[in-house]
Amino acid sequence: MIKVDISNVWGQLALPDLLAIEKDVFDAHMMLTDGTGAGSDYLGWLDLPVKEETEEIRRIRFAAERIRKNSDVFVVIGIGGSYLGPRAAIELLQGTNHNIGKGKGNPQIYFAGNSLSTRSWNELTRLLEGKDFSIVIISKSGTTTEPAIATRALRWLLERKYGTEEARKRTYAITDPTSGALRQMATEEGWETFLIPPNVGGRYSVLTAVGLLPMAVAGIDPMEVMAGAYAAKEAYDIRSFENPAWLYAAARNLLYRKGKAIEVLEGFGPSFKMMGLWWQQLFGESEGKDGKGIFPVPAEFTTDLHSFGQMIQQGQRNLFETMVRFDPPAQKLTIGGDYKNLDNLNYLEGKTLDYVDEQAYLGTLQAHVDGDVPVITMDMGPLDAAKVGEMFYFFELACGLSAYLLGVNPFDQPGVEFYKRNMFRLLGKPGYEK
Amino acid sequence: MIKVDISNVWGQLALPDLLAIEKDVFDAHMMLTDGTGAGSDYLGWLDLPVKEETEEIRRIRFAAERIRKNSDVFVVIGIGGSYLGPRAAIELLQGTNHNIGKGKGNPQIYFAGNSLSTRSWNELTRLLEGKDFSIVIISKSGTTTEPAIATRALRWLLERKYGTEEARKRTYAITDPTSGALRQMATEEGWETFLIPPNVGGRYSVLTAVGLLPMAVAGIDPMEVMAGAYAAKEAYDIRSFENPAWLYAAARNLLYRKGKAIEVLEGFGPSFKMMGLWWQQLFGESEGKDGKGIFPVPAEFTTDLHSFGQMIQQGQRNLFETMVRFDPPAQKLTIGGDYKNLDNLNYLEGKTLDYVDEQAYLGTLQAHVDGDVPVITMDMGPLDAAKVGEMFYFFELACGLSAYLLGVNPFDQPGVEFYKRNMFRLLGKPGYEK
Repeated sequence: MIKVDISNVWGQLALPDLLAIEKDVFDAHMMLTDGTGAGSDYLGWLDLPVKEETEEIRRIRFAAERIRKNSDVFVVIGIGGSYLGPRAAIELLQGTNHNIGKGKGNPQIYFAGNSLSTRSWNELTRLLEGKDFSIVIISKSGTTTEPAIATRALRWLLERKYGTEEARKRTYAITDPTSGALRQMATEEGWETFLIPPNVGGRYSVLTAVGLLPMAVAGIDPMEVMAGAYAAKEAYDIRSFENPAWLYAAARNLLYRKGKAIEVLEGFGPSFKMMGLWWQQLFGESEGKDGKGIFPVPAEFTTDLHSFGQMIQQGQRNLFETMVRFDPPAQKLTIGGDYKNLDNLNYLEGKTLDYVDEQAYLGTLQAHVDGDVPVITMDMGPLDAAKVGEMFYFFELACGLSAYLLGVNPFDQPGVEFYKRNMFRLLGKPGYEK
Repeated sequence: MIKVDISNVWGQLALPDLLAIEKDVFDAHMMLTDGTGAGSDYLGWLDLPVKEETEEIRRIRFAAERIRKNSDVFVVIGIGGSYLGPRAAIELLQGTNHNIGKGKGNPQIYFAGNSLSTRSWNELTRLLEGKDFSIVIISKSGTTTEPAIATRALRWLLERKYGTEEARKRTYAITDPTSGALRQMATEEGWETFLIPPNVGGRYSVLTAVGLLPMAVAGIDPMEVMAGAYAAKEAYDIRSFENPAWLYAAARNLLYRKGKAIEVLEGFGPSFKMMGLWWQQLFGESEGKDGKGIFPVPAEFTTDLHSFGQMIQQGQRNLFETMVRFDPPAQKLTIGGDYKNLDNLNYLEGKTLDYVDEQAYLGTLQAHVDGDVPVITMDMGPLDAAKVGEMFYFFELACGLSAYLLGVNPFDQPGVEFYKRNMFRLLGKPGYEK
């Protein structure tokens, strides 16, 4: 299990605070597993982890093998919950430069339809020049503006390059099993499809084909991810503060009640960045409503200690931190000696880079606690595909608990419609002219 | 000039608020240009923009040409202010995938020494396998832990690959003109060097060789950047609210005084992301002290409207936004028709993607203002190298003004030492044992 340590928040919270909300956390957990809370139509994510390979996952593996064989590039079209999860998993396991040097057999993976940027589109068409490619469209409805525009444009490129029949074979859709425009398009065009169950919301969908197909194309075994998620489903069902999801949800809610408005989630190294953005959506969209919610900010250490770290140390005391650590990889860098020692680094001769990183972490933890910033720490253990599955499930569960503790519906996002309505009116979309 | 519009904060501020601090903004500007405020030893950035090519910039261009000719990869070693600026400029002008397909003649550019991540290091060594490469070490002191470790390791790789003499020619340093370990190393080893003037702090250094050499290696003309910066130096010297830097600094300070704790800076499209991180350091490290400061959070629209956009629309009302727009590029995407129209997109047939993006921006602006979020907008005009130079200068000036309005020293970062001291003690660095 992920080790959540809240001993560094005790300066601002006391044990009685924690015990006082034990019953509330228990109730929140019951609301999730019994489906008695707000938004209970969207609890399908609780049961996504499976122990044995399903027919769906077998088809995901087969499709991924086909794409790996016939494509230099795989374009994943999606936004929000149809975008952040797969990208987070791939970057965490394979690094932010995972596309460098890739091609047929192990295709590059680009994400499209997640903005309206013309510069991004021009960049993508340049990257696709002369390459064999396939696409997957991820959307519940098929009518969301960003991915719908990207889909039209990429279908046109595919058909021009391959003709209708081959383009059909290179197009996949992940969508609702029966309803919505994308389902209808897929049926009419004869695309292979995978499912987003109707009772799974976008930001809780990473353990469906939404996450698993792009991961599989990247060479990540979906059943390894599922093994971690399934273990998490079993392990994090404990109804007590032995459950690290309970500790995390309770601590962040208590800190919120004490006036902490911002949570900074810190990974160490760039490959965690996208996971931070996935977490930001999960918690921000689940909790940011009814005038409430902790503002979630992902950060990268030690990088950002030389950036806005100053502000964490000595700025407004309206924030807390959650530091996420993984075991170091097997392949180490050992720091060499230098007889001149002009950089004063010889005291580290023979030490490994991860050892220095660990001391930087411990030194930062102490410095920030001394600066009156409460710090939650998460020791994730070794980093592998199973861990990624476990983390997704852990954070989703903790988020559900946390939002119920806050008294909001973790599964809706009513505010997202506001800008869309204005945009549709400005664009003259039929029905929005007003 | 950049057009800063604060008309969408009037719901929360009134004109008399603005007029009431006019004198303070004037005084802050005088403190900068007369050197009468706190931290006045670090005002060198005000005069970095030049009209004519200097000897330093000529050498930067020559070095860049040499590196472009003899290297597949250029590794830029630096952290904080020695890292974010050049990366921000390159990604804004060339996109986040700028390294794909590059090699000799137009080398890939990787950034190292900005974390203690072993995974990043392993990734970099894999990327360097079989490639010709050169390195630049950017550091005022030469003893900062992250870049110093990367320097030792990369020097070893260079020397093993090329031997001492050729490795020497492939190593560049950007550092203090006379003092510090890196200056001494460069002198002893015979590396070509460029300057960080002693009166320019890290986060204000992007218009020195720190930013200009990596940009030049990426094919960006340093004098085009300088042309924009120089024009900015002239234009933004106005001492009135005609000056957009005045408007931005004043509006954000007034909003802070009204309890807004968070500023979300939003670019449209992924290529602005690193610029957002550069801005985050600039403002976070300059203002986050003495228990004060607005927490700066960069974001990407429309992407994040499908992520934590919900929280901006309906969460705690403790934030304001700054939306940054550029003119669209010349090469457009026009949305095609589809006779089936299953995605309901035909109402956009013949429209361009940037037109849709503009309506999304306007719709979002209105939605967030309706949701009681004050929004500052910045119309940057066309995006080119000159604009990047102008933006750097504009934000630096606005930050200096803003920090003086807040009553803090914009140019120090006393809190950064705290974690370092702990880390050095844990690592057993001589002089820090206890």
